[in-house]
Amino acid sequence: MRIVDISLPISPSLPVWPGDPPVRIEKLSLISEGADANVSQISCGVHMGTHVDAPSHFIDSGLGVETLALEVLVGPTYVLDLIGVDVIDAGTLREAAIPDGVERILFKTRNSMYWAGGIQTFQEDFVAVDLSGAEWLVEKKIKLVGVDYLSVAPFDAGVPTHQTLLRHGVVIVEGLDLSSIEAGWYDLACLPLKIIASDGAPARAVLMSE
Amino acid sequence: MRIVDISLPISPSLPVWPGDPPVRIEKLSLISEGADANVSQISCGVHMGTHVDAPSHFIDSGLGVETLALEVLVGPTYVLDLIGVDVIDAGTLREAAIPDGVERILFKTRNSMYWAGGIQTFQEDFVAVDLSGAEWLVEKKIKLVGVDYLSVAPFDAGVPTHQTLLRHGVVIVEGLDLSSIEAGWYDLACLPLKIIASDGAPARAVLMSE
Repeated sequence: MRIVDISLPISPSLPVWPGDPPVRIEKLSLISEGADANVSQISCGVHMGTHVDAPSHFIDSGLGVETLALEVLVGPTYVLDLIGVDVIDAGTLREAAIPDGVERILFKTRNSMYWAGGIQTFQEDFVAVDLSGAEWLVEKKIKLVGVDYLSVAPFDAGVPTHQTLLRHGVVIVEGLDLSSIEAGWYDLACLPLKIIASDGAPARAVLMSE
Repeated sequence: MRIVDISLPISPSLPVWPGDPPVRIEKLSLISEGADANVSQISCGVHMGTHVDAPSHFIDSGLGVETLALEVLVGPTYVLDLIGVDVIDAGTLREAAIPDGVERILFKTRNSMYWAGGIQTFQEDFVAVDLSGAEWLVEKKIKLVGVDYLSVAPFDAGVPTHQTLLRHGVVIVEGLDLSSIEAGWYDLACLPLKIIASDGAPARAVLMSE
């Protein structure tokens, strides 16, 4: 079995959503200062890096991230190549060669090149799913959608896409690095931290293939 | 496929290692206060809850948690029932019915009852692996060992067990809740956050079976 990491490296230089705090990593104890062990602590927004959105992110009465079904976060997943696309709308998805039976879909776009290039400033012009695209995903009974920048929705239109997906129970995975992944079928394991009643959680995500 | 979560719930009431900071979760923005979205941040030690130790935790020149092989963190795993045991030493392991070919092993002890019982204070008398047990695991070429309290080593003897395992490249997973798991074979997926150059990282861990 081949396992490929599609998670972003977490460090203070990771770009974060404007207004969110930067990642901070501090040492609590150091062997070099006489301690038995090196021990670090981390402070970060729960929507930094590779992460999962909970319904409560955009729905005030929505459930927390610990309630998301593991059976959705783990399983067969299709990676769709949308490298030439600027907006993922219903037309784009209708015309894309998406196989029948897809329940989990990850969109590989030019966003992944930001990660491959090590760009450390937030990019507002990322490729995202607009409302029509979100409605298409709901209609097709997609259970999980993953994107390769920090939001599934366009920078200046966060609410419609998120609310449409989250109201229909679609699990949203954001901040994937798909730069090394070819289109096709894989087994996804996306495991977010089990933070109780949280609107989201950082995750590690991998794609497996035989 | 059946997927069972063996991760601890992360919240401010999670017991942490003495001296480590408590888990803190704060709201950065609230829909109820007019924001588009609820957004939280978390602050915690990287060795809280279900987590993985990196070589650099007890070896000052050791590698960080992002270097741990996914091929070790994912794969066939044996859960050994040691409910009646007080110390996991070489004798215990020699006499236990561990099948041939085990590369990943999780020890289910009375520690798991602390989690099942919701005990929120740190327990010093947890069951752990002593130096002889660590040496036995190295000799048997175990690649990953998981325990159901916050350290693989006894409370007052952290260094020998950790150094022995980490020096030999054994991946250490700590803070598992095995209270609902029966002894036997499973497929483990233990995915720690990809925190660069960190001495450890919080993880989500699941056991899968057909």
